[in-house]
Amino acid sequence: MKRLWQNCHLATMKDCTYGIVTHGALVTQGNLIEWVGPHSAVPAQHYDEIHDLQGAWVTPGLIDCHTHAVFGGNRSGEFEQRLLGTSYADIARAGGGIASTVRATRDASEDELLASARKRLASLLREGVTTLEVKSGYGLDLASERKMLQVARQLGQRLPLTVRTTCLAAHALPPEYAGQPDAFITHICETLLPTLAREGLVDAVDAFCEHLAFSPAQVERVFQAAHALGLPIKLHAEQLSSLGGSSLAARYKALSADHLEYMTEADVKAMAASGTVAVLLPGAFYLLREKQLPPIDRLREEGVPIALSTDMNPGTSPVLSLRLMLNMACTLFRLTPEEALAGVTVHAAKALGLAATHGTLEVGKVADFIAWDIEQPADLAYWLGGDLPKRIVYHGEEVVHG
Amino acid sequence: MKRLWQNCHLATMKDCTYGIVTHGALVTQGNLIEWVGPHSAVPAQHYDEIHDLQGAWVTPGLIDCHTHAVFGGNRSGEFEQRLLGTSYADIARAGGGIASTVRATRDASEDELLASARKRLASLLREGVTTLEVKSGYGLDLASERKMLQVARQLGQRLPLTVRTTCLAAHALPPEYAGQPDAFITHICETLLPTLAREGLVDAVDAFCEHLAFSPAQVERVFQAAHALGLPIKLHAEQLSSLGGSSLAARYKALSADHLEYMTEADVKAMAASGTVAVLLPGAFYLLREKQLPPIDRLREEGVPIALSTDMNPGTSPVLSLRLMLNMACTLFRLTPEEALAGVTVHAAKALGLAATHGTLEVGKVADFIAWDIEQPADLAYWLGGDLPKRIVYHGEEVVHG
Ligand SMILES: [Zn+2]
Ligand SMILES: [Zn+2]
Repeated sequence: MKRLWQNCHLATMKDCTYGIVTHGALVTQGNLIEWVGPHSAVPAQHYDEIHDLQGAWVTPGLIDCHTHAVFGGNRSGEFEQRLLGTSYADIARAGGGIASTVRATRDASEDELLASARKRLASLLREGVTTLEVKSGYGLDLASERKMLQVARQLGQRLPLTVRTTCLAAHALPPEYAGQPDAFITHICETLLPTLAREGLVDAVDAFCEHLAFSPAQVERVFQAAHALGLPIKLHAEQLSSLGGSSLAARYKALSADHLEYMTEADVKAMAASGTVAVLLPGAFYLLREKQLPPIDRLREEGVPIALSTDMNPGTSPVLSLRLMLNMACTLFRLTPEEALAGVTVHAAKALGLAATHGTLEVGKVADFIAWDIEQPADLAYWLGGDLPKRIVYHGEEVVHG
Repeated sequence: MKRLWQNCHLATMKDCTYGIVTHGALVTQGNLIEWVGPHSAVPAQHYDEIHDLQGAWVTPGLIDCHTHAVFGGNRSGEFEQRLLGTSYADIARAGGGIASTVRATRDASEDELLASARKRLASLLREGVTTLEVKSGYGLDLASERKMLQVARQLGQRLPLTVRTTCLAAHALPPEYAGQPDAFITHICETLLPTLAREGLVDAVDAFCEHLAFSPAQVERVFQAAHALGLPIKLHAEQLSSLGGSSLAARYKALSADHLEYMTEADVKAMAASGTVAVLLPGAFYLLREKQLPPIDRLREEGVPIALSTDMNPGTSPVLSLRLMLNMACTLFRLTPEEALAGVTVHAAKALGLAATHGTLEVGKVADFIAWDIEQPADLAYWLGGDLPKRIVYHGEEVVHG
């Protein structure tokens, strides 16, 4: 099916800039982009369908490259308790925090996890997210991690959404390994990860490098296991303290290192050298009322690609909107609207290892795009919250969300 | 038409608390609430319709009590310029800032203003806003202020939404009065306000008390004119500096004083004594990266009602979501989720002079309510962005938004 999409302006995001084509058009053939350019140069040929985009601005489909979107339970009660004055320590003593999400996730059936995740993803889909990463990491045992990753795969099958799965078994220490983090890492490296990889459930491997999670030495063992399985890696690094996780990730040619508020100059240089994407998570920064900013100017100067994501998770970032992250990146991190849009398109694609197929409007790429009823691309970062009017095209087909 | 709404939990917001009724029900007769209570006590009588709310949490319809939702143009270009390093002074010199919105609003037809406002309000409506205040203040002459207020009235006629209009002619000095603020105030008091009030376009009167706008003495003249016309007053006060505007507003028994970051102890006491609502605007606080917090603890201790609003406007608060303000009030101002919900229901009603008819689920009040598919009321403040699943009832009738 050959389709012409015309009467629009394009922000192609080619070369990681807006890459603007005013009065542009797109031709799609099946699920791929076949031609992009000015309307005056549209190839004269037969089109099965011609779509009038009525002056909309077309961008690539949005890519949310760091989420924990599959989980059991909900931590709004904890959120409320904290605001009523209960200390974090008291909440943890009462079984709250990540431990409560692990319990609820282990207890939930696959159907329950699927239903609750679908409800959350409805918001992302409606605002134009067409590619999504989903991490495991609340199961922390083979069966429960498998269950989470299977749910992630099912989301990709049932929704107009490309889902990339990431195994984050090294997220926290489960109760059955209390006091034995190295034994848990051994279990991950020797059993859990190879098994789930063999089952085709793992597109990438992630870990949480932090004092309250795993040390760089433990993380490095996970990276070695991932490399042995031929899997790309990612890392939660330098969120609360500076452990050199991002340098370690760079040394292992990680796709991305994520959070990065406390990264050092050496980390920046290492990531620049390896081409590792810096995934910034302004929602978590905002919700934790963090004061330490990631070193944006240095990342920019060294040419480290900057992606943005929701970090959707029940504890530190119950964020249901990727577009909101554009505004937060501009307001809190002083990114420009152009950098912010690149952060959820071209650089987010790279953070998922999808640079060749996703993230820009270019010939040969997958035809995922959004036609926004806006005045100019900066509107996407400018409007705070709400639902901008749009049309969504996934794999060449228009999607209608209820 | 008598309707029973059952199989739900209620956050009635009675007495400015959650006022929870688990396993509750509501009876509506026409556009009013006729009965509220536990399901076990539902009156045995004939119902024309019975609605199963499937375990939802029902709250009053949300009330956005401070918006500048009608305006021409858009300032996303300015937002982008600022982030690219252009100074505010340079933007003002190039005709940007509020002057550009005044020009665009004066130039726009009523139909154009209506169409652009409808597009923005679609987000608010969809998330459960059933009552909205709209201010004038970008016209700054009789014809243009009238045009804005007429558009506001039309929004109320065409949408499932109760609109309250506020004349904010004393918002900024128009170019034709440059250097003559007192003459402009005279024009407002003697011509503009009496004319628009006579035409039935004004439900309340507001002004902007600030160094870059009008002095307390000038504002007081506007208040006297409003009082002479029998119109209630509101005030933009203490946003950027401490001028005692909120004390002045309290002395005139204002419905509300709004912003309030720089209010003093004397202002708090004055507002407590007069029963004036403190309307906090966390979106503007966030977008301006303000550091000075409103004195939440003191407002709480003195029993000043705290409302929250979007302050939707093109310059300092292009906010399209009232629910997002709940999270920002909790995260940035440390309100509890219960206080935040009261801030967009019962206290927001009071800020609009609608305490007798709106803002709680109580017998005799207007049947505007939302049935949220959530676990508990705190979810409304906890989830950041996105669109929570819900059913919306306006004046006793279910509304379906596209
Ligand atoms: Zn994360
Ligand atoms: Zn305002």
